[in-house]
Amino acid sequence: MEDPRVKAEVLMEALPYIKEYHGQTIVIKYGGNAMVSEELKESVATDIVLMKLVGISPVIVHGGGPQITDYMKKLSKEAQFVKGLRVTDAETMEIVQMVLVGKINKELVSLINRHGCLSVGISGEDGRFILAEKISGEGELGFVGNVKKINTKIVENLIKENFIPVIASIGTDERGQSYNINADLAAGEIAASLQANKVIFLTDVDGLYHDFKDKSSLISQITIEECEERMVKGEISEGMIPKIKGSLIALKRGVERAHILNGTLPHALLLEIFTDEGIGTMITK
Amino acid sequence: MEDPRVKAEVLMEALPYIKEYHGQTIVIKYGGNAMVSEELKESVATDIVLMKLVGISPVIVHGGGPQITDYMKKLSKEAQFVKGLRVTDAETMEIVQMVLVGKINKELVSLINRHGCLSVGISGEDGRFILAEKISGEGELGFVGNVKKINTKIVENLIKENFIPVIASIGTDERGQSYNINADLAAGEIAASLQANKVIFLTDVDGLYHDFKDKSSLISQITIEECEERMVKGEISEGMIPKIKGSLIALKRGVERAHILNGTLPHALLLEIFTDEGIGTMITK
Amino acid sequence: MEDPRVKAEVLMEALPYIKEYHGQTIVIKYGGNAMVSEELKESVATDIVLMKLVGISPVIVHGGGPQITDYMKKLSKEAQFVKGLRVTDAETMEIVQMVLVGKINKELVSLINRHGCLSVGISGEDGRFILAEKISGEGELGFVGNVKKINTKIVENLIKENFIPVIASIGTDERGQSYNINADLAAGEIAASLQANKVIFLTDVDGLYHDFKDKSSLISQITIEECEERMVKGEISEGMIPKIKGSLIALKRGVERAHILNGTLPHALLLEIFTDEGIGTMITK
Amino acid sequence: MEDPRVKAEVLMEALPYIKEYHGQTIVIKYGGNAMVSEELKESVATDIVLMKLVGISPVIVHGGGPQITDYMKKLSKEAQFVKGLRVTDAETMEIVQMVLVGKINKELVSLINRHGCLSVGISGEDGRFILAEKISGEGELGFVGNVKKINTKIVENLIKENFIPVIASIGTDERGQSYNINADLAAGEIAASLQANKVIFLTDVDGLYHDFKDKSSLISQITIEECEERMVKGEISEGMIPKIKGSLIALKRGVERAHILNGTLPHALLLEIFTDEGIGTMITK
Amino acid sequence: MEDPRVKAEVLMEALPYIKEYHGQTIVIKYGGNAMVSEELKESVATDIVLMKLVGISPVIVHGGGPQITDYMKKLSKEAQFVKGLRVTDAETMEIVQMVLVGKINKELVSLINRHGCLSVGISGEDGRFILAEKISGEGELGFVGNVKKINTKIVENLIKENFIPVIASIGTDERGQSYNINADLAAGEIAASLQANKVIFLTDVDGLYHDFKDKSSLISQITIEECEERMVKGEISEGMIPKIKGSLIALKRGVERAHILNGTLPHALLLEIFTDEGIGTMITK
Amino acid sequence: MEDPRVKAEVLMEALPYIKEYHGQTIVIKYGGNAMVSEELKESVATDIVLMKLVGISPVIVHGGGPQITDYMKKLSKEAQFVKGLRVTDAETMEIVQMVLVGKINKELVSLINRHGCLSVGISGEDGRFILAEKISGEGELGFVGNVKKINTKIVENLIKENFIPVIASIGTDERGQSYNINADLAAGEIAASLQANKVIFLTDVDGLYHDFKDKSSLISQITIEECEERMVKGEISEGMIPKIKGSLIALKRGVERAHILNGTLPHALLLEIFTDEGIGTMITK
Repeated sequence: MEDPRVKAEVLMEALPYIKEYHGQTIVIKYGGNAMVSEELKESVATDIVLMKLVGISPVIVHGGGPQITDYMKKLSKEAQFVKGLRVTDAETMEIVQMVLVGKINKELVSLINRHGCLSVGISGEDGRFILAEKISGEGELGFVGNVKKINTKIVENLIKENFIPVIASIGTDERGQSYNINADLAAGEIAASLQANKVIFLTDVDGLYHDFKDKSSLISQITIEECEERMVKGEISEGMIPKIKGSLIALKRGVERAHILNGTLPHALLLEIFTDEGIGTMITK
Repeated sequence: MEDPRVKAEVLMEALPYIKEYHGQTIVIKYGGNAMVSEELKESVATDIVLMKLVGISPVIVHGGGPQITDYMKKLSKEAQFVKGLRVTDAETMEIVQMVLVGKINKELVSLINRHGCLSVGISGEDGRFILAEKISGEGELGFVGNVKKINTKIVENLIKENFIPVIASIGTDERGQSYNINADLAAGEIAASLQANKVIFLTDVDGLYHDFKDKSSLISQITIEECEERMVKGEISEGMIPKIKGSLIALKRGVERAHILNGTLPHALLLEIFTDEGIGTMITK
Repeated sequence: MEDPRVKAEVLMEALPYIKEYHGQTIVIKYGGNAMVSEELKESVATDIVLMKLVGISPVIVHGGGPQITDYMKKLSKEAQFVKGLRVTDAETMEIVQMVLVGKINKELVSLINRHGCLSVGISGEDGRFILAEKISGEGELGFVGNVKKINTKIVENLIKENFIPVIASIGTDERGQSYNINADLAAGEIAASLQANKVIFLTDVDGLYHDFKDKSSLISQITIEECEERMVKGEISEGMIPKIKGSLIALKRGVERAHILNGTLPHALLLEIFTDEGIGTMITK
Repeated sequence: MEDPRVKAEVLMEALPYIKEYHGQTIVIKYGGNAMVSEELKESVATDIVLMKLVGISPVIVHGGGPQITDYMKKLSKEAQFVKGLRVTDAETMEIVQMVLVGKINKELVSLINRHGCLSVGISGEDGRFILAEKISGEGELGFVGNVKKINTKIVENLIKENFIPVIASIGTDERGQSYNINADLAAGEIAASLQANKVIFLTDVDGLYHDFKDKSSLISQITIEECEERMVKGEISEGMIPKIKGSLIALKRGVERAHILNGTLPHALLLEIFTDEGIGTMITK
Repeated sequence: MEDPRVKAEVLMEALPYIKEYHGQTIVIKYGGNAMVSEELKESVATDIVLMKLVGISPVIVHGGGPQITDYMKKLSKEAQFVKGLRVTDAETMEIVQMVLVGKINKELVSLINRHGCLSVGISGEDGRFILAEKISGEGELGFVGNVKKINTKIVENLIKENFIPVIASIGTDERGQSYNINADLAAGEIAASLQANKVIFLTDVDGLYHDFKDKSSLISQITIEECEERMVKGEISEGMIPKIKGSLIALKRGVERAHILNGTLPHALLLEIFTDEGIGTMITK
Repeated sequence: MEDPRVKAEVLMEALPYIKEYHGQTIVIKYGGNAMVSEELKESVATDIVLMKLVGISPVIVHGGGPQITDYMKKLSKEAQFVKGLRVTDAETMEIVQMVLVGKINKELVSLINRHGCLSVGISGEDGRFILAEKISGEGELGFVGNVKKINTKIVENLIKENFIPVIASIGTDERGQSYNINADLAAGEIAASLQANKVIFLTDVDGLYHDFKDKSSLISQITIEECEERMVKGEISEGMIPKIKGSLIALKRGVERAHILNGTLPHALLLEIFTDEGIGTMITK
């Protein structure tokens, strides 16, 4: 057990951050890659509940790529990718929806509920939250979509009623066709539309590196312009590209900061939000 | 095209029913057996939208037995039943959840959205809507549950915000374990907890019969007592039993009427609600 | 009794109109000429109640010319008209007010109340709803007035509280003098000030005709410009002129459509609002 | 012009009364007998406006017996009375309604509007405010009614929206038939249903007398019991009986005090409410 | 006792003023010089309560110069002034705060409470109502401050909840240092920030004079421009300067009128507000 | 700087307490004895701000005995006590009020404001918050009072508007006379009237002891009954008696727990509220 003085110090360290974020909305993209153990999921869930209790409105957006691929295997269907995007025929779309909405979303909802705040899971069809359209000009990708419009009403209602929204990144068009939407981009769009103050990407690497092979070269802070430059120069790894794109969408429409954090470290969210620790990469305007 | 006088007559016939049901909540159990064609699903969706537009608050509860069994087959898993209840091991529970929440629920949401009212789909975990506990004393059924408590807050919020709630009949316990809940019983419990005025079971038969083989012996109206008597005597077919039980749960806790309708007839809901036609079986106190 | 399929069809035909008009305000001018029988008045009242129940806010404006003339006769007072306007001395004004407010207005209120929605009748003095000024330059007309300003507060309150407002077309000036106001023009002004979506004139002819003698030449749709042209050319009959003027007042200040309907046909309102039937003349921008 | 000290004294004298009545509802029966000159009507209107401005909610109930009789004469119809009640055939009922609602009510509304507070006039049909039933066992009185129920909603709304309600004492039954209601009794019922703090009867005598012929024998204060005793003994004049009955209805259902004042004295209301002057007769529990 | 007709006249004289000021906010600077006797304080308190009861929102700002000087004497501390401003070292600031907040403010609160409206006393620190900064360029005045910003929230809340706010003119900076603020200037700033309709300075002279020695030369009405001209010419006495400055602050930011009244006359406030008497000096734009 | 894992642990330890106290009201009596250094006052202020930010409504009640005695000395007035109660003549009452309201209260308000939450200081006169009456039967104590009634409105408003209320323990009677109220008893009464969940007494000893001389004999938890027994037996020191009495008032009227903490230990409040540390003495029902 820690010395009481240490406890007091840590809580006092948290005070200015609690003050700063009080009443703010923070969108958290929780990637399938960061859902590596039950213990880690619990750690993320408790961090989210703590955020809620101190007056922050966390909004969770999740994907579930690895879990979808697993299920496709069970159904003897091979996963195909074009430029990192999953080729999504009607059958695949059904599987995507069942895994994201019927499995992962509800697991996250249950997890948060168990730690003391009530959560409600929704998908893009609910209240037509994510209006989408088919991605164009990318060969035969099938039902892969872009966000056309976020109808914030349902999520704003859930926040007002003190529920924590958990969102599966699936979109719908006006005729009711569902689309597979990249969860990083969806998180950026949602953060922008909700006028969130921050968007955080929880993934399985520590952030951006000057040189990916040199783990000591982690970039703590970077601007939009520098990000765009690096993308043009091809200095950003394929997995990071949608996170950077999602960040730019958010930052350009008024979100103040984007963070890329390693969600496989216990309580990464909590340390980033409530302590002086500088972990991960922060992207600013 | 009909004679204008006929149109006026039909609309005038609807007027007293619109008046009567205005501002009321009606729970509709939409069974998997009644989801037999796209056309019929459209017909149910338009009926629900019409109800909403004339001031009724419809709440949809759905199951999906046949669709679950289909998916289990795809995954080479055999469906087993004990006394009409699906034996639900952990793997089956996952499939149930994926099919009900990730597939059927979202299809219904999309369908309603397309006809002009916004719908939101939820499952028992969302806002801990259906708190459940394991069914006891029924041998090895696995994760089959009873409703312990309906936490109406989330559904009441959705109604207040003018969304049509669509509910997958899955429950959760305090620790986050999911349970397969019979959708007929869930509908009865939900109607009772929401203090609905009516609960309607849409199935694939016309109602209760004096003699099931004699199609002319349909019972138009029956009381709780008569139902209980018939159950004791074994005069109610196995498929009807949960509908009757669901009706009794609702009626005994203040719901005024329960109806069993044949949802495979086009616009059965609409005819029952808005016209003088007496279709199906009505159960009263 | 109609075939259930016919009933379903008619109700389905109404659905898109209910959707379209939901939440909208529709001002209905109910002319004294259209109040020809108890049966017809009942038909108008039920149509109005149906509109209310499906989410439309109907606002009724009525005149009562024939009834006023009748009462003047009873009091051995001769009715005089100049260019279609009633010469209104102090004594006549008292009779106008007593007949419109004390007789016709309350009859309509009672009629609507009896069909299941509560109505409240008001006159221009109530909450100073119709601020009027004396018509100028028309010789000796006495207390005939123009609308100067509609103070919408009282009617907006009645709508908010779910009452159906029934308005006698009498105005008042700041000193409390009452004025006889043409009900067609009043309806146009009220529709404009309430930002109604539609204004409907219920009269005793079918609409505008290309050639009044040729009953087959009814004009289904006409624009503001065409109306003005016809007025200039003298092609509009005297009785129609105030209805056209009222329509133009409304359309020029943002009301979307004006309709002239034959209120002596049963359920003319209902057929116009809820079916594909094109009856009467519609005036558009 | 008065000495400023006198002005200050008078205003200070009013202060405790303003405090006492702040936020209270006071029902004022304004009898036709008290409407004797334009000047007096102005005085009543300004008193009512002052009450409103200092935070009291005045509700006016009016009759108009003499004016009805006048109009009947104009229409060559003879007024008949049985035990002080007007025999009211259908034709008479129409005249009653036209005079009360179309003439007197609107005059009062205009008068109050002109002094700076907005007023709305209603009759018993409006929002079905006065639900009535035919008086029974009184021979052939025709459409003379008793109050069955006061539906306070419309008047409560008007008060909430800062309008001064002016009520014509006409009732309606469920089928829409109108009834002539004694305004004194109506005022008592309305005061009781609105949970008013006071009901005031403005008439043309100073109050109750020990001996009606001895003007010095005015009774300042009397209890319910004493009133009832006097009624039994026949010591109350015929004209006073309905006022006493109205008072008893109000007092027995929670109204604190009833007053009978001489409304033909200028500013009788104001002096009674805001000064130490003891005018008229006060009835207490 | 006055003649009832006189009483009625006085109350009728007040009516148009009550109408005019209804719903308005009036800031009253109550100077220490005007607090000369218990009787006079009572008179001011009753005037304020009357204002409140007839629908005005009075806001009281007070100083207390003489009382501070008295207390300093008791503590053997000499009061020093530079250009009419009190030199305020830390010890003096503590005394200022104790006398204004702990003594005068609470006396006024008690006084108002006793006359029937509840009052709440606040100082500039409360809800950081008066954000101040040190006066610059005035030699060694110590903690004498200027108003930097009025945070109206706390006072607006008190008004909304029907409390009468009583404000001690002490300011605070962001670090919590208190400042002695001139109460006349504070009243001007508060009136401007609350968008009051009027600011009234209660002092111990009758107003501005053309020639201060000639008591018959009182100026009834004067414009901003004329005031500024007189200040430039040195025609305004030292004691009046802050009142004139406070008036100008208020008038230039939208307050309609400023008044300088002699608060040592009984009921000066009441006579100014509710009667035709023209007392004191009124400053207009 | 601490290890991040330690930080995460401490924050996680706080989570269940934040959950438990969320939305609760906690009354904190901050005694003059515990205001021993600027540093300690800062520590208390930050603890209170942290409580507020995580969703607790702290209400501060303060005394100031030592500071009052200091000021009396400055004014050459000797402090006298009878049974621990200060003899309070009119002059002393004025000093009490000036020190508590004008000095200590505003210091605490400033301190809290500076740490990021807005505070409003009130005294018993404000909104007549503490209605008091003279203590009877205690010889010549002068203006020493008991709480007669807490009018919670003003404090409930401040809480609703997100201000932290800071209350000086002075009472008032209906005539406006102020009374010196023991702050411990006031805190108990206020906690009871606000239906607080907890009342905490911050003093300069660690709590109750079995044997006051043996510092190892601190009592961690004790019931109401045990407290009363100890009081009867005289086992509670004089200084503790009012804290115990205040606790009993609160607990008997529904407050769940009372705590006596040593406020001279840094962050005593924070450690008690947000960690597993068991400090001080807890009194339970």
